[in-house]
Amino acid sequence: MTKNKKTLTDISELGEFGLIDRLTSKFKSRNEKTIMGIGDDAAIIDTGGLYTIITKDIFSEGVHFDITYAPLKHLGYKVVTANLSDIYAMNGTPTHIFAGIGVSSRYSLEALEEIYKGIKLACEKYELDLGGGDTIASKAGLFISITALGSVAPDMVTYRNGAKEHDLICVSGNLGGAYAGLLILEREKQVFKANPDMQPSLKDYSYVLERQLKPEARKDIIELLKERNIKPSSMIDISDGLASEVIHICKNSECGASVYEEKLPLDKMTADVAHEFKIDPSTFALNGGEDYELLFTINQKDYEKIKDQQEISIIGHITNKSEGTKLITVSGNVAELRAQGWDAFREKKNK
Amino acid sequence: MTKNKKTLTDISELGEFGLIDRLTSKFKSRNEKTIMGIGDDAAIIDTGGLYTIITKDIFSEGVHFDITYAPLKHLGYKVVTANLSDIYAMNGTPTHIFAGIGVSSRYSLEALEEIYKGIKLACEKYELDLGGGDTIASKAGLFISITALGSVAPDMVTYRNGAKEHDLICVSGNLGGAYAGLLILEREKQVFKANPDMQPSLKDYSYVLERQLKPEARKDIIELLKERNIKPSSMIDISDGLASEVIHICKNSECGASVYEEKLPLDKMTADVAHEFKIDPSTFALNGGEDYELLFTINQKDYEKIKDQQEISIIGHITNKSEGTKLITVSGNVAELRAQGWDAFREKKNK
Repeated sequence: MTKNKKTLTDISELGEFGLIDRLTSKFKSRNEKTIMGIGDDAAIIDTGGLYTIITKDIFSEGVHFDITYAPLKHLGYKVVTANLSDIYAMNGTPTHIFAGIGVSSRYSLEALEEIYKGIKLACEKYELDLGGGDTIASKAGLFISITALGSVAPDMVTYRNGAKEHDLICVSGNLGGAYAGLLILEREKQVFKANPDMQPSLKDYSYVLERQLKPEARKDIIELLKERNIKPSSMIDISDGLASEVIHICKNSECGASVYEEKLPLDKMTADVAHEFKIDPSTFALNGGEDYELLFTINQKDYEKIKDQQEISIIGHITNKSEGTKLITVSGNVAELRAQGWDAFREKKNK
Repeated sequence: MTKNKKTLTDISELGEFGLIDRLTSKFKSRNEKTIMGIGDDAAIIDTGGLYTIITKDIFSEGVHFDITYAPLKHLGYKVVTANLSDIYAMNGTPTHIFAGIGVSSRYSLEALEEIYKGIKLACEKYELDLGGGDTIASKAGLFISITALGSVAPDMVTYRNGAKEHDLICVSGNLGGAYAGLLILEREKQVFKANPDMQPSLKDYSYVLERQLKPEARKDIIELLKERNIKPSSMIDISDGLASEVIHICKNSECGASVYEEKLPLDKMTADVAHEFKIDPSTFALNGGEDYELLFTINQKDYEKIKDQQEISIIGHITNKSEGTKLITVSGNVAELRAQGWDAFREKKNK
């Protein structure tokens, strides 16, 4: 059933979320211990005391990463933190990861060891146990599948569907940096391809390169919220760009949102790279992927508890569903918030 | 760090188990809730009431399956049952699966739907919830990563390391059928390649083909053991061939074993295929992979409880470590039991 017949449907026609919906919509939950199945950052299972959180992600060479410039140790680190980000987005504490790696015979043992060094570093930093590590042969290239487990008290889980009108919309850290890093790496790769004697000029970009190649998950934000006794009304991690995630929260919570462009948290280097590429920096923040920051909503009464936090920006508020998801631009115009998030299938086709 | 330098190590030099050991041996468990990490069929985590069991497996096109003859629906079913087999091997009850699929643009939506139909069928038959289903683009071919979760009472877990001298060695069902099916499929594929007008002659082989293409996991055996109040002293699933699994049990339990060739459970069709290929049927049983039967050891006092069970064969007994792992042949000779299990990296290299 490969696509030799005209009547078959190209996967890219549905987009990533459309595809997942189409494939999984017929599955019915039959287990009363399934608190949350498909449809949030991670699944939640009632395993007795605390709830268990499970999430799984696959990263595929040439689609999610490019080993021309991604050091394998960083790659091992990143595939773990990307998964942890989903656990934190449920307000949970990650405890275990399971790694599955497929490699073609082009990779050496030493290459695999580098990946595992990165995985180990992430396990140490985030205090995780490696519960399983399977390595298999692949036909072409490298892929890494990570399953992360965590736990959370039943009354502390944050889903995507709890945002309420007038809640404040908050974002951790800054946005668009990972995308800025990707653009720099891609540019230097082209320069290198054109003239292999040219050394890539990367030294002025270390912050955004690290955002792309070795991102962290926001454990500190979850700890801070706990310390300050704040339970977000909704939370999601920002992996596909802010706009896409705001729309997810609004769709799941049946509400609207007003996001203020001037409030978007941008690092100076990210803005500089945007200018260098003649792109509006807000586009980086709204649609650049892989930031692994947290987007969450809080009740206004919690405002005082976080207003002094440099690592948390309030970028807007939740509105009635009828008002839609809006961006209030710096010039005061009101625009529809559009998700132009990264779509692996489409990306691939366009290349 | 691909293999352009002589000093780098080819992955196939280590073998599958050597590779996993090498990559994961430096990871230390830091979480007291980790009851069993790497080193058994699945990991066990103390999540409060029951223990949670987690296992993860990846299947890669051209290495673990061949879509020339594996119907995609069956493939979806098989990747689930193969994982469930690991949960049953811990004496547990599977509850959830998470699927991650990587596909190249050569695959259509309809192809993915077929895979998911098989996954759904397995979920229905084994009463599982699908907790997550991620689909990503791959550079080449198809790979499927499945994570399965289950639960087990803390005092009922069966590890690989509990076998005791004089315990009886038991096997469920029959062995070698999946390998017989594979040989038939490979033969017919070659015939078809040589002459595409030839129709494959498969009709006389339905049982062994089903063993290869759509295996079941032995839920019934776990239920039976529970009903009869038997807790095996050790258990493992047979995915790499009986010899390999007996050696695993003996290594982990620090014991020896005597396995009687005449007791090996063989289906008639499996034996017929072995004769057709001029291979000793015992070789199929000892070294053919993918049977997904259960190998377990029980105390002799439990013998009466299972002696009437056609689906359980007693094939030998556990001995002192000093006696090694032995095969007592039909002719009465004593041979060393050798694992010639399937090794993806080696297989690939030899092709």
